[in-house]
Formats: sequence, C-alpha cells, structure tokens
Amino acid sequence: MVEHVVVIGGDAAGMSAASQARRRRGADELRITVFERGSFTSYSACGIPYWVGGLVSEASDLVARTPEQHRARGIDLHTGTEVTELDLTGRRVRSRELATGEQRWTSYDQLVLATGAAPVRPALPGFDAPGVHSVHTLPDGEALLDTLARTGPADGRRAVVVGGGYIGVEMAEAMLLRGYQVTLVHRTPEPMPSLDPDLGALVREGMVKLGIEVVPGAEAVEVLLGPSGRPRAVRSTVGEHPAELVVLGLGVRPRSDLARAAGLALGIHGGLRTDERMRVLDAEGARVDGLWAGGDCVEVRHLVSGRHEHIALGTHANKQGMVIGANLAGEALAFPGVVGTAITKVCELEIARTGLTERQATAAGLQWVTATVEASTRAGYYPDAVPMTVKLLAEQVSKRLLGVQLVGGPGAGKRIDVGAVALSAHLTVEQLLFQDLAYAPPFSPVWDPLLVAARKLAARLFG
Amino acid sequence: MVEHVVVIGGDAAGMSAASQARRRRGADELRITVFERGSFTSYSACGIPYWVGGLVSEASDLVARTPEQHRARGIDLHTGTEVTELDLTGRRVRSRELATGEQRWTSYDQLVLATGAAPVRPALPGFDAPGVHSVHTLPDGEALLDTLARTGPADGRRAVVVGGGYIGVEMAEAMLLRGYQVTLVHRTPEPMPSLDPDLGALVREGMVKLGIEVVPGAEAVEVLLGPSGRPRAVRSTVGEHPAELVVLGLGVRPRSDLARAAGLALGIHGGLRTDERMRVLDAEGARVDGLWAGGDCVEVRHLVSGRHEHIALGTHANKQGMVIGANLAGEALAFPGVVGTAITKVCELEIARTGLTERQATAAGLQWVTATVEASTRAGYYPDAVPMTVKLLAEQVSKRLLGVQLVGGPGAGKRIDVGAVALSAHLTVEQLLFQDLAYAPPFSPVWDPLLVAARKLAARLFG
Repeated sequence: MVEHVVVIGGDAAGMSAASQARRRRGADELRITVFERGSFTSYSACGIPYWVGGLVSEASDLVARTPEQHRARGIDLHTGTEVTELDLTGRRVRSRELATGEQRWTSYDQLVLATGAAPVRPALPGFDAPGVHSVHTLPDGEALLDTLARTGPADGRRAVVVGGGYIGVEMAEAMLLRGYQVTLVHRTPEPMPSLDPDLGALVREGMVKLGIEVVPGAEAVEVLLGPSGRPRAVRSTVGEHPAELVVLGLGVRPRSDLARAAGLALGIHGGLRTDERMRVLDAEGARVDGLWAGGDCVEVRHLVSGRHEHIALGTHANKQGMVIGANLAGEALAFPGVVGTAITKVCELEIARTGLTERQATAAGLQWVTATVEASTRAGYYPDAVPMTVKLLAEQVSKRLLGVQLVGGPGAGKRIDVGAVALSAHLTVEQLLFQDLAYAPPFSPVWDPLLVAARKLAARLFG
Repeated sequence: MVEHVVVIGGDAAGMSAASQARRRRGADELRITVFERGSFTSYSACGIPYWVGGLVSEASDLVARTPEQHRARGIDLHTGTEVTELDLTGRRVRSRELATGEQRWTSYDQLVLATGAAPVRPALPGFDAPGVHSVHTLPDGEALLDTLARTGPADGRRAVVVGGGYIGVEMAEAMLLRGYQVTLVHRTPEPMPSLDPDLGALVREGMVKLGIEVVPGAEAVEVLLGPSGRPRAVRSTVGEHPAELVVLGLGVRPRSDLARAAGLALGIHGGLRTDERMRVLDAEGARVDGLWAGGDCVEVRHLVSGRHEHIALGTHANKQGMVIGANLAGEALAFPGVVGTAITKVCELEIARTGLTERQATAAGLQWVTATVEASTRAGYYPDAVPMTVKLLAEQVSKRLLGVQLVGGPGAGKRIDVGAVALSAHLTVEQLLFQDLAYAPPFSPVWDPLLVAARKLAARLFG
C-alpha cells in the first residue's frame, strides 16, 4: 500500500522532510504532497538582509530549490495554497487555493507540520503603512527593494531599524550599505540581547564607529507618517527618530495557530513540542500518532539548560526536516537538541554566542563564574591580526563550561563552534583549556583566544 | 628552604615552565635558573617563514619575551650557554659559556628538559654550503635574509625547496612572495604527507596554480655548487633542479642527546617519554624523581590512536610548559595528550588535519570508512564563498570519528577545530552530524561543510 505523507510548509523543514523521504522511498511506497502558501520553496530567509544590502543580486540566488525542481523529483507541491484546518481524528487537512478560493480536503497517513514562524508586528499606529518593512520572506525583501528604488538616491535619507537582535543589526548593515543614515532603536540597554550586556556594549561601540546612531532603552510606539502616507519618523519612548524608511526586526513567533485550533498542546513559547524523532507530543507528553513537526514552528531542547526554547534558525530546520524525512522512510533518526549557537556580523564586526548567558544560567538555577579576555585573531605579528573579545561562563561546582560569547574582527566568529562542540560534549573548563586547536601564525596566536579565556577562567575556578 | 629549579632551553616549553613557576611562587620559595644556548628566548619559530617572506618585518616581532624581560621577572637566565652533561645522580648539570668556553656545574632540586628539536639536515654533498638554508631558528632566518639581500633582485632567480611538509609549503610561499621561481622537490607521491594523498593532490594542484613547480617522488641527493661555492642546482633521484638558493624543510628530530647520554630512555621517535604531568619516565615507565620535560624534545600521547608521536608544535610546547610550571609550584596539572591537529597555508589555500589519516588508522589496527565532500566556505550566494574539500574518517564498528582533513580557500582552515574537539570528546559521526555549529550566510552554508561530510559518512556507515 502506498502511504500518503502531507507536508504543510514548503521552506527548510518541510521541503527537507519531503526531499529526504522521497530520496529514500520511491513513488511506489510513498506519495508526498506539500502545501505552501507562498510561491517560493526552499529559500534562505537568512540571506534576505544581504540581498537587501546589495551583496546578493537576485532573489533567485536565495532559492536552493524551486517548486519545479521539487516537482521534477516526484513531490506533489501546491504553492499558493493555504491549509486552513487540521482534522486530526479524520486524518485530513483542508486547504484553500489562494488564487481561486477553491477549498478541498486531503487525507493523509502521516502529517508534517512545518508552518514556520511569523515576524512580530505590533498593532501600533503607522506600523502597517507602506515604507514600514519586515524582512521575513522573499516578498518582504522585494517590497523593501521597491521602496529603495522608489525613494531614489539615499543621500541624506534616514532609515530607522526597530529591534536590536540579529535581524536588527543585519538590517542596520544593509541600510548602511545602501547609503542610508541608520538609527537603531531598541528596547534593551545594549543591542544583541542574546549576549550579556558587557559584550552587547562592544557591539554598540562597533556600530557607533560605523556611523550608526544607536538608541538603547527605547520602545517604538508609533510610526509618524508624512503627507504621502509614508514614514517621516519613528516615535519611541525616548523621542522622535526621523525616518523615510522603517525596518522592523522585532523577532518571530512560532506559526502554530492551525495546531492550536486542532487542539494540539503548545509549549511555553507557543511552539509545538516534539520528541527527539520530531513526533508531535500532546499535553501529556504522549506522541500523537502520524504527526510530525519541525523548523521554526517547534520548540527545541537546549542541551545545557535542559529547557525548551524557540530558536528560529535555518540550520535547525534543515536538520529536523532531514530527521523527519528519514523517519517517514522507516528509519530511526533523532535530533538531539541544540546548545543555542548563533552568529552574525555588522560589517566587519563578527558576533557569536553559544550555550547560556549570565541571565540564562541564573534562570536555569546554576551558580556560575565568568572570565573575559581580549586576544588576537592571528599571531600578533601577522598581517591583519585583529582584536577579539571572548567571554566564558562555567558552572562553579562542576567546572563545566556553560557558555561562550565573542565579538571581534574577521576570523573571530566561527571560533564559536569550538564552544558549541565543547558544550554538547559537556567539557569542563580544564578540558577546554587543553583542546588541540589548530595553530599557525596566519590562523591563531599560539594560545587560541578561546584557550586564553579558558586559562583565565580555570585560574578563577581553581583559585 | 628555597628549591632550585634548573631549566635547559629558553624557548616555548622552557620559558613557559619558568614563567608559570615564577608567577605562582616567589623568589623566597623557588630559585629558577635557565640555560639557553642561543641568544633569543620565547620566540615563534613558526613565524620564521612569514618573516622570510616579508609579511613580518623584524625578527624582534617574533620574540614574545626577551631575555631582559625574563630576568626582570626574577628568572636567572643564561643565554649563550650550552648544557653539556647531566649528572642525574648528583642532581647537577654541567654548562659551558659559548663566548668564553668557561664550564661549571650547577646543582638543582628539579630539572626541566626543554631542549627542543633539531632540523634534519642530511650529510650529503653540498648540503652545508652557503646558500643552503634551514629555517628552524632566528639566526637561520637571518642567514636566509642575508642571502636574499646578497643575491639582489629575484627576477629569474630560482629557489628549490626540499621537503613537502609544513615548512616546505610555507617556505615555497615565502620564496614566491620574494619573487623567486620556486621548485618543490619532495619524496612522497603528493606534498603534505600528513594528509592522505587524495587531499595532498589538492595541495599540489593549488601550488601548481600559483606557479610553483612541484616535483614528487624525488629524493634530493646533492646540492651542485657553482664557481662561487654557492648552489647552482639540486640534484634529485629524478633530475637536476636549477637553484641559486636552497631551503631545507625535511622535518625535525627531538634534541635528546643529553638525555640519552645521561642514560635516560627514549621513545620510538627518539623523544623523551613523560607522564601526563610531564614528569620524565624511565625505560620501565617509572617516574624519574625531580625530572620534567616538555616541548619539541618529548613524545606525546595521541588520544585517537593511543600511540606516542613526536609532534613539534609551539602550541603543545606552551601548554606543556605551563603544566610543568604549575606542577613545579606544587599544583597538579595534567597535559592530557593531543589529537594531531595541524594547519598551514600556501598563499590563499588553507590546509588542515586532525586525528588519523588512512595510513595512521590502518597502522593503529582500525577498520575505517571515509567520505569526502566539496562544499563552500559561506552560503553559495554570499560574496567570497569559495570551495573547500573535507574528508572524514570513521571507525567502521564503533562509528567513532577518527580524523578530519581539509583543503580550501580563506575560511576553511580553522574549521578543523570542530574536528579536534569532536575527536577529543570521542564523538560518533552521527553526533558530529547534529552539532549545533554557527550558521549565517557570511560564515557558512546552512549545512556547514563538516556536517555535509558527516552526513555523507553517516549514510555510508549506516546505509
């Protein structure tokens, strides 16, 4: 008998699941149907800031695989089609073709929820005006590029970016590259609230050096519109910030309305809960038969805190999709969880983190110690050696590494991966100190910056 | 009572030991004497190729701490002084001041052997002529720079580099930067024999693209001299290679003559054997009281193969010196061993390895499986994304990762550190596949190249 898999959502998680299942099982074993509301599939939302900034020339560059390519691989893909209702008991979903309004029910044996996340867009005056942009989807990016084209030369024009997280700092860079004067309005004392404020301060200093006006502790409350109905300023709790263009980077929330409406339990962050094989769990933690979920609509287990988090990242979505696809094909693959690694940059300033910050460690009930060092990306005498700051957190009692944060010039960022592997392997600070990291003058000082930090933290821990 | 520590050797291991001990114990507790044959201390021998190549302007840039700086910190440092004999029973060493020939005995309570390594320099005709250079010490580098200055403009001049290992490829780059036409003459089928030949072939291709003539399978047997007594060619087992300048990069051997003469047991590679605390072991594996050793004169335990290796690297020397210094001060620090990480580059081509190669895995009696992938350093659509090749080895039965090798453009090299930590944590390929490595388009494709390789290898192991 041919099993029928229905997938809701045609981006990273959904299409990875569909593709993996298809690669492992032919059409004689598995029928695969995907519903996608938009018209694009398998695209890199993370690449949108670089497209808007002009570093990537075409939207199509961000598309890893088109609907046609998926269809050619034997996936029955319906774009422009929204799923409006789940009937879990009857094992069917109701979909609506957006162009025609036509509705129909489709039965399934296995259902994959990969509905993604939606950008937070507060219901405040002016926030839905033209010229106020999110950058969550390819059409969002196109709309922003249309505004850039419409407003003409950027000389003297001002953009306000609202939100100091990843999208906020990336869009600040993008608007800078487009020649705008950029103001970053954000709520926290320092930008990049996924870092501790002492490291966030380094990000702020770097942004200010680039000519970005950084306005901390400011909650945007209104977009003031000019006579054309387009932005003239953002009003925040600390003042008015002139702007012809506004970009919102206020984070995302799991898109889990369908699941909620179908009576499925959601986690504390509003995302679906799954087991390691990405099978959906109900309120009692029992698996819902035939139901899978992955990507930005699920919560993931954080392997350091043991808590569940909502971390919307393409890399997790791809891995989870692969796990779902393999499991749909009858294998037994597990997604073990995450350690909270993330990376970004503002022009040449690289920013990365993994594990827990001070606040997160405290929230997890841990007693922690920190050490922060400034070191060099290469041997000090080698050309283009630049400073980087590394902060480590460790648990007082166990001496176990809890987190790494770093900010620095080119070559700093990907060093975070050492911390990521060290965390998932539960290394102590002393074990980190003796890691056999690669050394040659063009690549590192003889003590890699992470090892310098480990040495300082070990001295603190051992007294 | 004030204990007397005598250290033989004033570079990385010796001075790290002396400095660490001094930092932890004052002159009222510990007297520290160091004998160094040369006139420099604590310098980066690894930096010499970049100084010779003109990327680093002064020899002094390579010196982390001068003799005067060490003396100012309360270390009784004797440069230009060679230790000629160890009297382990009498706990004293005989030294000779090179300038005066004056000899004396110095008693010790604790002795640290940090005598380093010596470059292999075969006793073949012409190999000791002027214009034939090693690059092991600062005076070696000065001598080579003198030859460059003396021979004047490099137009049309030819340099032959003998040896295809780390020093060989680094010196090939250096001579290229100096405007020479470069020939690399080496014994193995491909350069970089610390990689498998398939990856070595990529290094060869990269070098050939840079205009370097690569002569594999060639053993240098004579340096042919011109009328001036300086090189005119290198004769190898495959032919004659014109050269006004010859650089030898034939590897190094532990400098352990003193230890051997004193009756100490040496390992299979001719290096001293120690325990994890860097205490010297005798032939029966028992600790020799009051005797420590670290740096390029010792053998280290390879944590993947379980075997002892001689790996002359400043990063190990520094760590071992730190361990010795802490232990001399009464603490209990251990150097756990290495996983064989190394990195280098030829111009923009980055080369790195960790763990075991096919040959090493076979020698260790392991059944292995490999996977090799070509991937991109950044998201494919991001500017300056360049190809990199990653090869993984894993043990067939346990699925444990055994080694990583990679060759690629800027941004490839330091990714090896993920492999290094994964190896020291004994991760399986499946565990590697799910590592939470940092992803953003400027830094990595959504699947990091190491994860792409892990995915392919996992499919082989499980499929």
